[in-house]
Amino acid sequence: MDRIFSRFDSSPLVKAIRHSVLTGGKRYRPLLLLSTADYFKVEREESLPFACGLELIHNYSLVHDDLPSMDNDDFRRGQPSCHKAFGEDIALLTGDALLTLAFEIMAGSALHHGNAAVKIDLIHEISGFAGIQGMIGGQLLDITVSPKDLSEDRLYDLIEKKTASLITAAVRSGAILGNASSEDLKALTEYGRNIGLAFQIRDDILDTEQDQAANILLRPNSVLVMGLEKAHAKLKEHITKSLRSLKNNGIKSEELEYLASMLAM
Amino acid sequence: MDRIFSRFDSSPLVKAIRHSVLTGGKRYRPLLLLSTADYFKVEREESLPFACGLELIHNYSLVHDDLPSMDNDDFRRGQPSCHKAFGEDIALLTGDALLTLAFEIMAGSALHHGNAAVKIDLIHEISGFAGIQGMIGGQLLDITVSPKDLSEDRLYDLIEKKTASLITAAVRSGAILGNASSEDLKALTEYGRNIGLAFQIRDDILDTEQDQAANILLRPNSVLVMGLEKAHAKLKEHITKSLRSLKNNGIKSEELEYLASMLAM
Repeated sequence: MDRIFSRFDSSPLVKAIRHSVLTGGKRYRPLLLLSTADYFKVEREESLPFACGLELIHNYSLVHDDLPSMDNDDFRRGQPSCHKAFGEDIALLTGDALLTLAFEIMAGSALHHGNAAVKIDLIHEISGFAGIQGMIGGQLLDITVSPKDLSEDRLYDLIEKKTASLITAAVRSGAILGNASSEDLKALTEYGRNIGLAFQIRDDILDTEQDQAANILLRPNSVLVMGLEKAHAKLKEHITKSLRSLKNNGIKSEELEYLASMLAM
Repeated sequence: MDRIFSRFDSSPLVKAIRHSVLTGGKRYRPLLLLSTADYFKVEREESLPFACGLELIHNYSLVHDDLPSMDNDDFRRGQPSCHKAFGEDIALLTGDALLTLAFEIMAGSALHHGNAAVKIDLIHEISGFAGIQGMIGGQLLDITVSPKDLSEDRLYDLIEKKTASLITAAVRSGAILGNASSEDLKALTEYGRNIGLAFQIRDDILDTEQDQAANILLRPNSVLVMGLEKAHAKLKEHITKSLRSLKNNGIKSEELEYLASMLAM
């Protein structure tokens, strides 16, 4: 990603992009995409632009989510959030630029390598999971649903869209690049959905433990809805289901197993 | 576009999207794309998704540009701007959703019709013109350059990126869909660039005439930099150049001639 950004002249916008993307993060989504693609022996040259694209989309959502009109977060990954460091206007453009760049990188890759039809399928897939019926739909629920009257069903709808969508897209993209059979694609989709749900429940548990009580009351949170004990049980259940989905379909990948197991606490 | 939006469940976000996109606008960019594609006898089924995509990208930029941290505009097309009607958080998500949906629509079209490689080329092209080196780069200059010390060169750099980029992309996309020769593509790019510049200079003249003096001092404006007389001369010059670019290359399209001539005042 550093190499991608170095194509551009230095400007406050490009500084804000570097600050937002290159100062940490677990890179969970690109690792998932690359690990799935590796399992199908896809060349890194083909999978890497899509892994970068997904990470840029994830990072745009964080920059916009931190804005005062959304979560109003002053810090991200131990650094001042983008709008704190560069101003609200630049942070808005930073998110817009990251989302636009994601598609430029993904489409650009397809100009030179591999099957254009498969890659346009991927862009369609990823924009769908990132959009109104996916991640953005989840963000909408996050700001419009009152945390107090949230049922467990609605909570699941919310975290499925907000977090599991893009994580599922990461796994599916790797599988589609690898020309996976429909059985493998189905099993990996189930794996992705379950680790996506586990990922958000784990995040909610960590938030609670870090005593961010103020935030929890403002935004929907699994622990608030289900209680701490049930949240831990659900976390465990989704990790187990994700691993079972791999095993039952004979998908043996140490990387994918690790990316699920690491969510246990 | 109404048909596209009707796919989604009704929500505050989808209401805000309809409010932002379906309440007017000149549809200049999609008309350019369709007229160019028509000239090359491209079927509407192929060109329409890209025309919609471009209009969605244009509309996302307006919604975000109206936000308080940017231009802080209360009205757009005679209606309350998106954030005035739906709140800042929903307006932010509306812009994000429109940009994401643009790529979903464009990629989705390519799944079923025509040549996937050409269409991925278009997505690459459009995301480039909409991004850091195009429209978003222009927005950045708009908010970071002081209108008072703006030279004519920097003004041109600004309006070329902010406005002419997406207008050029509209014309080029129609030509690429039509498998235009490299001479035609070059001539149409020149046509698009010139009407793009004319479009913004005309807008700046109209703004000045409507006595929006307060805004002019806050944001760069052609009239402020060149004076009213020169702005009118430049407007005329760019329209003439755009028409000449068609004529010199034997491109006879009443629609494209009209879309240039209508900018005269």
